[in-house]
Amino acid sequence: MGRWPSWGWGLTELWLVGIGTGNPEHVTLEGQRALREAAVVLIPRKGAAKEDLAELRLGILRASGSYARVIPFEMPVRDEGLPYAERVERWHDAIATRWVAALEGAPEGPVALLVWGDPGLYDSTLRIAARLDPAPRVRVVPGVTALQALTSAHAVPFNTVNGAVVVTTGRRLRDHGWPEGAGTVVVMLDGECSFQSLDPTGISIWWGGFLGMAEQVLEAGPLAEAGPKIVAARAEARAKHGWIMDTYLMRRD
Amino acid sequence: MGRWPSWGWGLTELWLVGIGTGNPEHVTLEGQRALREAAVVLIPRKGAAKEDLAELRLGILRASGSYARVIPFEMPVRDEGLPYAERVERWHDAIATRWVAALEGAPEGPVALLVWGDPGLYDSTLRIAARLDPAPRVRVVPGVTALQALTSAHAVPFNTVNGAVVVTTGRRLRDHGWPEGAGTVVVMLDGECSFQSLDPTGISIWWGGFLGMAEQVLEAGPLAEAGPKIVAARAEARAKHGWIMDTYLMRRD
Repeated sequence: MGRWPSWGWGLTELWLVGIGTGNPEHVTLEGQRALREAAVVLIPRKGAAKEDLAELRLGILRASGSYARVIPFEMPVRDEGLPYAERVERWHDAIATRWVAALEGAPEGPVALLVWGDPGLYDSTLRIAARLDPAPRVRVVPGVTALQALTSAHAVPFNTVNGAVVVTTGRRLRDHGWPEGAGTVVVMLDGECSFQSLDPTGISIWWGGFLGMAEQVLEAGPLAEAGPKIVAARAEARAKHGWIMDTYLMRRD
Repeated sequence: MGRWPSWGWGLTELWLVGIGTGNPEHVTLEGQRALREAAVVLIPRKGAAKEDLAELRLGILRASGSYARVIPFEMPVRDEGLPYAERVERWHDAIATRWVAALEGAPEGPVALLVWGDPGLYDSTLRIAARLDPAPRVRVVPGVTALQALTSAHAVPFNTVNGAVVVTTGRRLRDHGWPEGAGTVVVMLDGECSFQSLDPTGISIWWGGFLGMAEQVLEAGPLAEAGPKIVAARAEARAKHGWIMDTYLMRRD
């Protein structure tokens, strides 16, 4: 007798556990408890360059005392030939399909995913989960984000007193420039050091790569001087490790 | 022989530990470790209405296995007669003075403060620490913020795909309206349900009070319908507990 669709009745609880930005001690007690109480943990494998992230997830899992069944799944490749929005949509479809295939015949009970940073912040896992049919109950365990890892590494406040902060992407910064009226801007998902597209006058920057990890690199200062240093430090760190994840905060005087 | 100024040579390390929004399990392993390694922990007492927060901090401290000396200090009262900016400045001065007085004769070694949420995000502790002279080394341990506690409680993403988010205050929302061009707005420090100042057409809201705590209350929906429910739920929860801390996210269609 087959259990088809096994995930259809099996996957009733999906837990997205924020694990922070790479420091295994960013995990919260709530996150550790969720990993211990999960029946299954899905671990993505993105290939050689990011293999260390799978290792990092397994380390966090072991440290939590979890006895969950660990099921790896291969991350699909994005179709770079498609326009941006469609490329993301198809990629998310493909990931949901991989989850379902990976969970075929898995033990019943809550399924957990360890999510980099926080599951709500510039992460696709909630959107991928929304594709599952029938829909499982989705529980989100909040985690330390790159925003906090960045401001804590530099010991600077996220906001000024009663000030607003725009959290945006490298793509938007390139397309739209400095957000209208913003005093502080934090940029995520920027593969191109898009601060280079700005007039640096009067702007200070606090940048971090591999935030919270042993490989952490930091630079800060007036954008005119720190900008070129960041471009160089980013290129060097990326060449050394084969990949990089970085974030930065900019503030106008 | 007096040790004057005892904090002058004693306070060389100040650790600001983010503890999340009130769920004792929001604390990270790094936060627990910092509390165990601290020599002294300063605990604010704000008076009867918020006494539970001091209790909550003590509970987190005990659970961490810390043997630090716990030193309470009374939070000063803000001078409501002053203009906003000056009132905040004088209040921060007064808090720094209370820290110094409280640490008179304290054991040497790292001094830790348990900071609600994350020390970088709409929190004054970094600015108060900047007043200390001589300046101690300040270490920030990142924590789960109200932003993550809110989006996780509702299981909604913070941002749309490639979208920007404006994090702002109730005061700014009242003074400046919906931020120019923003798709998503998160409002902090709003004691007046300032969403009431907006035209609700096309806006959805996700609101939470006492996020992460046993007292947590949530409301969500189109602003036109959810707004009045939130005003009522907030008033009821505030009357019941004597205080409230709440946050909300709004998104335009």
